[in-house]
Amino acid sequence: MIKKSVLFSMLLLLPVLAMAQNEDEVQLKKIYTQSLTNGKSYAWLDYLSNQIGGRLSGSFNAERAVEYTKAQLDSLGLDRVWLQPVMVPKWTRGIKEFAYIEYSPGDTNNIDICALGGSVATPSGGLKGNVIEVQGLEDLEKLGEEKIKGKIVFYNRPMQADLIQTFEAYGGCVDQRYSGAAEAAKYGAVGVIVRSMNLRLDDYPHTGSMSYGDTPASKRIPAAAISTNGAELLSSVLALNKDIKFYFRQTCKVFPDAQSFNVIGEIKGSTYPNEIITVGGHLDSWDLGDGSHDDGAGCVQSMEVLRLLKETGYKPKRTIRAVLFMNEENGLRGATKYAEVAKEKEENHVFALESDAGGFTPRGFSFDCDDANFKQITSWEPLFKPYLIHYFEKGGSGADVGPLKGNGTVLAGLRPDSQRYFDHHHAANDTFEHVNKRELELGAATMTALVYLIDKYGTVPSEKVKG
Amino acid sequence: MIKKSVLFSMLLLLPVLAMAQNEDEVQLKKIYTQSLTNGKSYAWLDYLSNQIGGRLSGSFNAERAVEYTKAQLDSLGLDRVWLQPVMVPKWTRGIKEFAYIEYSPGDTNNIDICALGGSVATPSGGLKGNVIEVQGLEDLEKLGEEKIKGKIVFYNRPMQADLIQTFEAYGGCVDQRYSGAAEAAKYGAVGVIVRSMNLRLDDYPHTGSMSYGDTPASKRIPAAAISTNGAELLSSVLALNKDIKFYFRQTCKVFPDAQSFNVIGEIKGSTYPNEIITVGGHLDSWDLGDGSHDDGAGCVQSMEVLRLLKETGYKPKRTIRAVLFMNEENGLRGATKYAEVAKEKEENHVFALESDAGGFTPRGFSFDCDDANFKQITSWEPLFKPYLIHYFEKGGSGADVGPLKGNGTVLAGLRPDSQRYFDHHHAANDTFEHVNKRELELGAATMTALVYLIDKYGTVPSEKVKG
Repeated sequence: MIKKSVLFSMLLLLPVLAMAQNEDEVQLKKIYTQSLTNGKSYAWLDYLSNQIGGRLSGSFNAERAVEYTKAQLDSLGLDRVWLQPVMVPKWTRGIKEFAYIEYSPGDTNNIDICALGGSVATPSGGLKGNVIEVQGLEDLEKLGEEKIKGKIVFYNRPMQADLIQTFEAYGGCVDQRYSGAAEAAKYGAVGVIVRSMNLRLDDYPHTGSMSYGDTPASKRIPAAAISTNGAELLSSVLALNKDIKFYFRQTCKVFPDAQSFNVIGEIKGSTYPNEIITVGGHLDSWDLGDGSHDDGAGCVQSMEVLRLLKETGYKPKRTIRAVLFMNEENGLRGATKYAEVAKEKEENHVFALESDAGGFTPRGFSFDCDDANFKQITSWEPLFKPYLIHYFEKGGSGADVGPLKGNGTVLAGLRPDSQRYFDHHHAANDTFEHVNKRELELGAATMTALVYLIDKYGTVPSEKVKG
Repeated sequence: MIKKSVLFSMLLLLPVLAMAQNEDEVQLKKIYTQSLTNGKSYAWLDYLSNQIGGRLSGSFNAERAVEYTKAQLDSLGLDRVWLQPVMVPKWTRGIKEFAYIEYSPGDTNNIDICALGGSVATPSGGLKGNVIEVQGLEDLEKLGEEKIKGKIVFYNRPMQADLIQTFEAYGGCVDQRYSGAAEAAKYGAVGVIVRSMNLRLDDYPHTGSMSYGDTPASKRIPAAAISTNGAELLSSVLALNKDIKFYFRQTCKVFPDAQSFNVIGEIKGSTYPNEIITVGGHLDSWDLGDGSHDDGAGCVQSMEVLRLLKETGYKPKRTIRAVLFMNEENGLRGATKYAEVAKEKEENHVFALESDAGGFTPRGFSFDCDDANFKQITSWEPLFKPYLIHYFEKGGSGADVGPLKGNGTVLAGLRPDSQRYFDHHHAANDTFEHVNKRELELGAATMTALVYLIDKYGTVPSEKVKG
């Protein structure tokens, strides 16, 4: 039985709690309404996508993106906007890749491919060879050098369609793209063709990063992606005739590291300025499309978080930063630098939220945190229900906020609907017209709502930090 | 405190309950896997959209859609497939509408419009008049006959962007389209132009049904929709010059009612054949697009429910019917007929589920039922969680299952993500390429999962029916 005095104190608290609850409801409503009726995210993304376009690390476009987003942050009247220098790798695709299947000399079928990011070029006259189809890295050992040497290895394991979470299907496939060339080279392969990481059958080859691991420079073989339709074609042709040849030519090149920047905007906290809440996406993108979903969306949403807080008249207690990380796609140098500097300066990052899963309808968040913080966050679920945000699960956060892990920092990733994400990911059809304005704006508002709640109530300090 | 004997009985039951739970998990996994890896819904929709196309009630295409879907149901080896005759209204759009804004004689701006469904034609030479812009029906009385007589009334209240549920925003606007002409005619207007029910700014005019109510035939005035961009243009032009004129010409016509059909396929129940579970969508569509989202998606998903149950080896205890209702868009005659026949035959419809909100990622269901049934259904929520289905709310069901209400029938509507629905609704861009295969298939599987659970556990009989 509860003591009368305690009960009495609780009763006294009730109106206060109800008022706080109501204040939060009102603030969330303001945030969503501002985003949906007067949002900036879509116009920013329009410029980033259509006036700048693909912006691979080290490229001229990446620098234009830095300039543009800094200027936009400058226009918001924040407390501080700055560029954080970081050296980034510079790989260029070169002139458009060219490929064909040769059924017999002169009887050829042109086919679209794209070099994987980080791949070496083919010889300048291109590379032609017989093809051996495999369902994954583990097939190589079974086949052995005898069957692989001198050939082009064709990795054709599709993404698993019956997985509901498409990122899980991606995770189950991407080793072919990332390590396919390094592994095939060990068995004497001369090149690698990888089925695009795409759940849909279409004609777009999807690029993405690959690594040669410790393969010496002289042993590195060129690697390219083929569209899912192309992969189906090549596979069915091979089933009829193992002697067909595949030709491809690509002129990609690695340059010395280039100077680039993370772009950062900040509202200083009024009460706990040393507690930092970071929200971010990555500013670089692959070069084939215009990087609207990956990750222009996450950048403009992060910028919009600061704007929505200001526009709705909220004065943060803690310092809120939007960070546009450079070089997520092929190096993670921006994220690494940001975390290094944070450590050097002994910054206290209490919360970091990333949006890097496309500008689709938000469903919720994934959290990398302890139970106490997760419990506090899930207590806010009812506030999100009117906005159809229901997904609050423990799991990963994101590549760019990952390096901040430790010291009790609560990490989170926005989780939009993922069904269409891999239709566009790293391909020429990751373009602005595939982003829906409302879906993008709902994402920005959802991020802002969570940042507001974290700012207002703080995170639960971990024992280590407290002690 | 629980009595020992009761506790003991409960403990004995636990393995049984666990087994049932596990059986359901396995069955749901089978359903989703079959839909996502070997589904038929997308291929059916491809044919319905691209080989048949728009299929307004009474049109030749509507008859082709009846033939095609019946043939497909026939191919599934069901217990019974039949056509249920129903007379439907037949309204035709006629030749392409034509419209322009006239700034001054000879200085004109062509503008796309489309006749609203059910509208009369303009005079054969078209109709030209000054325009009076209003924000809704309630503005008419304020303006009065003096300011309206002889003019074209332009309804320009937009859908409310800050409503998260887009159907709510639609509900708050559609009176302008449905009753705008009847109301404006009372004040002597000569025609009506309505801003399209679309949350996005684009160039597509959206059609949809309208009614003249009890307006006598001689007083009926033509009504057309203008795109959201067109509405913004017209409004800004009017702000500068109230004397501009609007011209439009349309040749739509009403024909005598035509013979048509609901298309029905059925698996007979093994244990309770007289308990009927109906799942459906509507086969007719507007004529501007190909009706992929509205409601080709709901039709092929309903057909797929039967196929998925069969393919996963499940033998229903109750009778499961897929019903493709004719004439939802402009008459609801198919649904009315289906409910009439059900009543005549004293059929016991225990459950009816509709899919008519687009082929987007499913989020859950809305239920129109008593508390006991809602409680049972929500007890299944954990089974749906792996499929990211979380929305289980009381509310409406759907227009086509609505007439089955009463006698304890549990009604439900699939609730897909609605953010993009009104970008396409009733417009020329409601086309196949805007339906994502996985999203469509997830919807079909989600419907099948619920039908399976309802079939297995039955509905909770209402007191009235029980008594």
